[in-house]
Amino acid sequence: MAVDEFSIIESYFSAIGNPFAELVLGQGDDAAVVDVEAGCQLVVAMDTLVSGVHFSPHCAAADIAHKALAVNLSDLAAMAAAPAWFQLSLTLPEADTDWLEEFAAALNQTATEYDLALIGGDTCRGPLSITIQVAGQVPKGSFVKRGGAQTGDRVVVSGELGNAALGLALQQGTVELPKNLRSRCEQALNRPLPRLELIPFLRANASAAIDISDGLCADLGHILDASDCGATLWREALPVNQWVREHEAYEYPLDGGDDYEICCCVPASNDAAIDAWNDAHAECPLTVVGEINAQGYYLQWPGTRLDLSNQGGYRHFA
Amino acid sequence: MAVDEFSIIESYFSAIGNPFAELVLGQGDDAAVVDVEAGCQLVVAMDTLVSGVHFSPHCAAADIAHKALAVNLSDLAAMAAAPAWFQLSLTLPEADTDWLEEFAAALNQTATEYDLALIGGDTCRGPLSITIQVAGQVPKGSFVKRGGAQTGDRVVVSGELGNAALGLALQQGTVELPKNLRSRCEQALNRPLPRLELIPFLRANASAAIDISDGLCADLGHILDASDCGATLWREALPVNQWVREHEAYEYPLDGGDDYEICCCVPASNDAAIDAWNDAHAECPLTVVGEINAQGYYLQWPGTRLDLSNQGGYRHFA
Repeated sequence: MAVDEFSIIESYFSAIGNPFAELVLGQGDDAAVVDVEAGCQLVVAMDTLVSGVHFSPHCAAADIAHKALAVNLSDLAAMAAAPAWFQLSLTLPEADTDWLEEFAAALNQTATEYDLALIGGDTCRGPLSITIQVAGQVPKGSFVKRGGAQTGDRVVVSGELGNAALGLALQQGTVELPKNLRSRCEQALNRPLPRLELIPFLRANASAAIDISDGLCADLGHILDASDCGATLWREALPVNQWVREHEAYEYPLDGGDDYEICCCVPASNDAAIDAWNDAHAECPLTVVGEINAQGYYLQWPGTRLDLSNQGGYRHFA
Repeated sequence: MAVDEFSIIESYFSAIGNPFAELVLGQGDDAAVVDVEAGCQLVVAMDTLVSGVHFSPHCAAADIAHKALAVNLSDLAAMAAAPAWFQLSLTLPEADTDWLEEFAAALNQTATEYDLALIGGDTCRGPLSITIQVAGQVPKGSFVKRGGAQTGDRVVVSGELGNAALGLALQQGTVELPKNLRSRCEQALNRPLPRLELIPFLRANASAAIDISDGLCADLGHILDASDCGATLWREALPVNQWVREHEAYEYPLDGGDDYEICCCVPASNDAAIDAWNDAHAECPLTVVGEINAQGYYLQWPGTRLDLSNQGGYRHFA
């Protein structure tokens, strides 16, 4: 079946997500026109997922759609920007209507859940690949960047780390997991949750933030580079599942990718805000896993201090 | 050689184009932050070029870079929006440093020439594909869309049509051209000129506009659909090269793609503005090629009136 760009857009992508109040001209022209809300700044990111690289060729269309949008929304969450709109460029080997229906339905579900509109983009023929460009808004100056961490800040992470990397290892047959953990790890890999609920917390309390896409060691490293400081991570404090703790398989939370949890730095004076958050948000717990230092980058556990600054993370040690 | 995303971005893409005055936070974070100039609206488009589909696998890296940006800028031109910034997602099978150097240098040249900055994006491994997302600005309400053409408006096109399609036919060996035409057609295919110089003319004079990417018949058809009106095109008035006229090879200008000239509709009361434009801009001539009617879509030449509304353009007839 030939790919007809116009009919694909009209049939599947003309009404995805929630309307954006400041949209002036939407799909169906050479470009879309938007206003930015008064007093706000626009925050923009773009990420591509390629079949066979970022997801298995056997991955369900619904999971691909969700993940392609979620990884971009995770970037907005890390910047403390509220989702506004997105553009989609979808490259498909053929116009498979079943695949397109499933993809569009899942994209619509995720866009609706996180309150943003698809306002334009492109479809074309080629090896399966999805690029999403997302835009969010922040009140002027209230975005959170990687630079800004200060000595004495807490290093805080959301959720449970390492589950997506375990899901991938499970898929690749390189690990065996107890039955009760499998679906949790598969879910973490295929259906990552962009932590947009953290936006008010981050604006009010964080000195720096990043989303964890390449593993905590590497991503906290980016904060340290941008903030020109160091950190010590406490291995025993990491929020991990029981299997990781029992097998001391800390390479998954520390070096595994795709968790899309948030890592942020919080001044000690805001400790009470962390406690208050945890009292009210059991589904998105925050855990203090370390501390910002003037320099050096270490991972500590009883009897050991591992220098993380001169190697590719924890895996080389494990 | 392994693709290292961070070193590729830092080495090749950290300083592309001209700075954007309203950039708040650029590359190197989870997302970029921008302001929109006071009194302006943001105009956004996104287009993907896939190797083997939109360009030959033998195409030079410099041509690919130029074209990927130019086709997006052409969308801004059609909306009468001045370029502001862009994001790049580059998917590469391998990190070929010669290729990357050539690609980045050409991207920088085009971005500098058209005055916009690369503010973020993504690089990843996979089949060669380039997605560019571009943003421009217009004073509030002064963008030009596809809808808006009125009965009696002139149908106006910029430049010379059909050369890019002839360049493709030449590349595919399906046409023989005189030597003096070959480089002009190859240039049209590989180095399309986004007609950003037309922005002031369009804002002041056009009731509707589109860029010609799929051939004049199809693209004017989109204006007619959006404006709920018809048109008559005058075949003999089309700005084409001597070879097309001599061979009556009008399928190239009418159904050929990739010209990236502008087709706009101009009220008859603005005829003097067209003349004034042409007196001052020999390198970007405007030609009146038809007229907007209440309904119907026709192509006329002496002795013949072809109905374009019930078929796939002129080619089915030719």
